Amino acid sequence: MTSATRSVEDRLLALEDRQAIYQVVCGYGYSVDGCNADSVGNFYVEDGVYEVGDMPAWVGREAIAGITREAGHLKLVQAGCAHMSTLPFVVIDGDHAVATCHTMVPMRGEKGFFIGRLSASRIELARQADGRWKIVYRQNFMLDGKPEGPALLSRLRDGPNAERGSWQ
Amino acid sequence: MTSATRSVEDRLLALEDRQAIYQVVCGYGYSVDGCNADSVGNFYVEDGVYEVGDMPAWVGREAIAGITREAGHLKLVQAGCAHMSTLPFVVIDGDHAVATCHTMVPMRGEKGFFIGRLSASRIELARQADGRWKIVYRQNFMLDGKPEGPALLSRLRDGPNAERGSWQ
Amino acid sequence: MTSATRSVEDRLLALEDRQAIYQVVCGYGYSVDGCNADSVGNFYVEDGVYEVGDMPAWVGREAIAGITREAGHLKLVQAGCAHMSTLPFVVIDGDHAVATCHTMVPMRGEKGFFIGRLSASRIELARQADGRWKIVYRQNFMLDGKPEGPALLSRLRDGPNAERGSWQ
Repeated sequence: MTSATRSVEDRLLALEDRQAIYQVVCGYGYSVDGCNADSVGNFYVEDGVYEVGDMPAWVGREAIAGITREAGHLKLVQAGCAHMSTLPFVVIDGDHAVATCHTMVPMRGEKGFFIGRLSASRIELARQADGRWKIVYRQNFMLDGKPEGPALLSRLRDGPNAERGSWQ
Repeated sequence: MTSATRSVEDRLLALEDRQAIYQVVCGYGYSVDGCNADSVGNFYVEDGVYEVGDMPAWVGREAIAGITREAGHLKLVQAGCAHMSTLPFVVIDGDHAVATCHTMVPMRGEKGFFIGRLSASRIELARQADGRWKIVYRQNFMLDGKPEGPALLSRLRDGPNAERGSWQ
Repeated sequence: MTSATRSVEDRLLALEDRQAIYQVVCGYGYSVDGCNADSVGNFYVEDGVYEVGDMPAWVGREAIAGITREAGHLKLVQAGCAHMSTLPFVVIDGDHAVATCHTMVPMRGEKGFFIGRLSASRIELARQADGRWKIVYRQNFMLDGKPEGPALLSRLRDGPNAERGSWQ
């Protein structure tokens, strides 16, 4: 559908949707590095899920917000770290959307900063009753040579209603 | 020209243009890491060119999409890598645009992740008949101390019709 | 306030504001790596201030633009470096805004690229008489384990009129 056939309202909403999703994707990293549990939780729906390929999943907003209080996380923050996300590729379909990005965690060690984690991330979002976008389901895979990370990235153009694929 | 003197249509289009260009710039990296040849090719015009300072140029959509099948690229993907792009600075002039960004390729080696490549990128795009933005010409230079990379970055505010400059 | 209650003009302006702020945040890094003093200065108001936790502050547009001519900076550029910024989280309140992001400076050394600096950045901007957004005050803190960087990031949702907090 070209721009010319869409209403001003539809076009404004599509623009606002993508900007709002940008805020969610980048805001998670700043919130988690800042150990701001409320802010982290606020980006997720009540029963949101955060799956990281090589770790147990965090299930529910409280569990995800609780990352900010985990000993392992605090150790990273106290050493020096950044949970960086790249500009996401976003596919929106009505009240659902998928954002694909890279995430990287540089950390400080004895010899200076090093890249502790490098991942592919696929983030499913839903528009809430109040108009805000929140994360329903997030999947991260380390880009360590296993096929799951590249497979996830290859699906960047798949909309939110597409199958989750064989990596699920 | 201030916002007040421009029509709603012009303002919507300018906003949509920049968002669309963001999708192209970030989407290339996810597609190439995902070895999704169709998706990579789709970001380029049929006769698009991708020049990297220290490598032979890829000429034409098929050649660029074919990066996803090159032995050197597959080796990187199988070791673990991310072709990351930063949020681009975008100058739009009618149906043409230029996006300037950093690109970085962290890779996994025996001792963990390391930064394999760090580059400056200038991406020339054109609006197609169907309204989509595609890459016509992309130039990358390694940020390895040679003057070409900084010279390319210094031209971030130059519009798409400006001279390509002495680095060409 | 939901979208439905806001005018088309207000919604267009909010979208344009965030895009314009994106340009400022990412454009600074490309300009400084490109040693483009005019472009660096142009992102700041005349009496803008750039504070970096572990360095003396740069006060005023001329001083900030002059970073591009400092011996220490030129040494980095001649070795190879990138002043990368991530997609910022942006809170806008009328003619004032705050953008929060990570900044990272990969540099080239004898053994290849390494991460020389990793920081948290909070950027206060103001809309100028001509409609452009410029930086009034920028604070960077290294993410080296000291509490100032995480404390700054934790305030990502605080608007431009909130207190600068105890890290000031």
